[in-house]
Amino acid sequence: VSFPPQPDRPISARSQSPIGVFDSGLGGLTVVRELMQAMPAEDVVYLADTARVPYGIKSLETVRRFARQDAAFLMGFDPKVLVVACNTASAAGYEDLRDRLDLPVVDVIRPGVRAALRAVDGPVGVIATEATVDSGAYQREIAARDPGRVVHACCCPLLVPIVEEGRDDDDPIVLSVLCDYLGPLQRARVEAIILGCTHYPLLAGPIAKLMGPDVRLINSGQAAALEVQAELCSNALSDPRDRSGRLTCFTTDKPDRFARLAERFGGRRPHSVDFVGTDELEVRARPGM
Amino acid sequence: VSFPPQPDRPISARSQSPIGVFDSGLGGLTVVRELMQAMPAEDVVYLADTARVPYGIKSLETVRRFARQDAAFLMGFDPKVLVVACNTASAAGYEDLRDRLDLPVVDVIRPGVRAALRAVDGPVGVIATEATVDSGAYQREIAARDPGRVVHACCCPLLVPIVEEGRDDDDPIVLSVLCDYLGPLQRARVEAIILGCTHYPLLAGPIAKLMGPDVRLINSGQAAALEVQAELCSNALSDPRDRSGRLTCFTTDKPDRFARLAERFGGRRPHSVDFVGTDELEVRARPGM
Repeated sequence: VSFPPQPDRPISARSQSPIGVFDSGLGGLTVVRELMQAMPAEDVVYLADTARVPYGIKSLETVRRFARQDAAFLMGFDPKVLVVACNTASAAGYEDLRDRLDLPVVDVIRPGVRAALRAVDGPVGVIATEATVDSGAYQREIAARDPGRVVHACCCPLLVPIVEEGRDDDDPIVLSVLCDYLGPLQRARVEAIILGCTHYPLLAGPIAKLMGPDVRLINSGQAAALEVQAELCSNALSDPRDRSGRLTCFTTDKPDRFARLAERFGGRRPHSVDFVGTDELEVRARPGM
Repeated sequence: VSFPPQPDRPISARSQSPIGVFDSGLGGLTVVRELMQAMPAEDVVYLADTARVPYGIKSLETVRRFARQDAAFLMGFDPKVLVVACNTASAAGYEDLRDRLDLPVVDVIRPGVRAALRAVDGPVGVIATEATVDSGAYQREIAARDPGRVVHACCCPLLVPIVEEGRDDDDPIVLSVLCDYLGPLQRARVEAIILGCTHYPLLAGPIAKLMGPDVRLINSGQAAALEVQAELCSNALSDPRDRSGRLTCFTTDKPDRFARLAERFGGRRPHSVDFVGTDELEVRARPGM
């Protein structure tokens, strides 16, 4: 797993290595927003696999293969921690990456579950992509931590394209689609909803309005950022410098569109957005992984 | 462009070669339905690039590269004609494939435009994916054939996921999303609407209901099937045997889901559905193309 060549950095400077983050597209920038807010000095290298987006409608095997390729690319930047900023890739590939890679790997599912179980005692709802829900990853993780907890997981295939389309929060189509998906969770009287897809925090406003003030919304990205922070602290890997970290992005398609929309998702403009082809990812990752 | 090895078929038996068809996913089966209805004796080999679906949100360069890889795979079956059963791939890659390949290539845009211009004299509407509309392929083709014709093209990003979700025709969300997209075309008093994405024929019912009986809906797949038939006839390549053709399918992901949904899109069950990985497509197509 080394691709492209790793920079020649002494071990002592490891705290100055970047945080590596990947997602199928723009959504993972909502996790980057939380990371850079919590740890402003850290550099982040982000890969968006926009040529093969979305992951949430694909098989776990295929997503696991893509996730390995994405991780292999980021390993070339010698990251000190790898963040799987995509719920579907977390469901499909977290264990695989954790076992294969020689660095801490943080996903978005496990931190989100822990935050939800801490936040409420009653039934928990999960909204996510088809692949994430069908994988059972959220249901298993909740059952492992609190076997008696009631979980209602529902997949919401239209929400990612709705967010990407950029409709307003009060657009009648946004509200009627959300009503349709959230109805069963309202009837099940869930006390918290895990936003189990990194696009969904952009719909937090209308979701909160529909569910009412008594239902807690859990942003997995926020929970994952706290876990990354704890991981860096406990290993003395936090960047000690007084500076503003750089956000360096790569996309497998449409770098211009990515650069244009990045601020809406990530809250800041990336310092650079460059292209890397999926043929490079597929071909170069092949023999090694 | 030869991959996998071409079967050893004498030139005289070329009429018994299959028709090669590719699409990003299930949608192209609406074209296959028309092909096999018009030419029941013909074999069809179909490739669905479900690991990288959808094409309609990606750049033309990336879609062109994917289209070359898809075509290269089908060339291994020595097809007598190649059908680009995807509007985005037609917009991005038709000329490229036509110039590179030594066999007739039929796309869905040009036949759809000819059918629309024959059907009505007034303004024409086109509904399609973002990539297809932004490419200007429909607008250019209409202008080339009838420079004075008024065209209204609009992209409808939610329609593909709505069709894939399998919602009923009278689902309120289907109707409100269609109202939203079709409103400008109604106000522009278009006389025909080209269904510029192979998923859209599955929404022909509610679209017809909303637009009323005076607006003609043009199914590009139907028009493309007639063009393939004319191409085979004029080259004496029609299969002369009294038989029912076979539909052989390959997908780059989720062959089981494809097999399950194929009948809804294609009107018949495929004889076989097998898996081929995108790593194979990317790696093997690389040196040759």
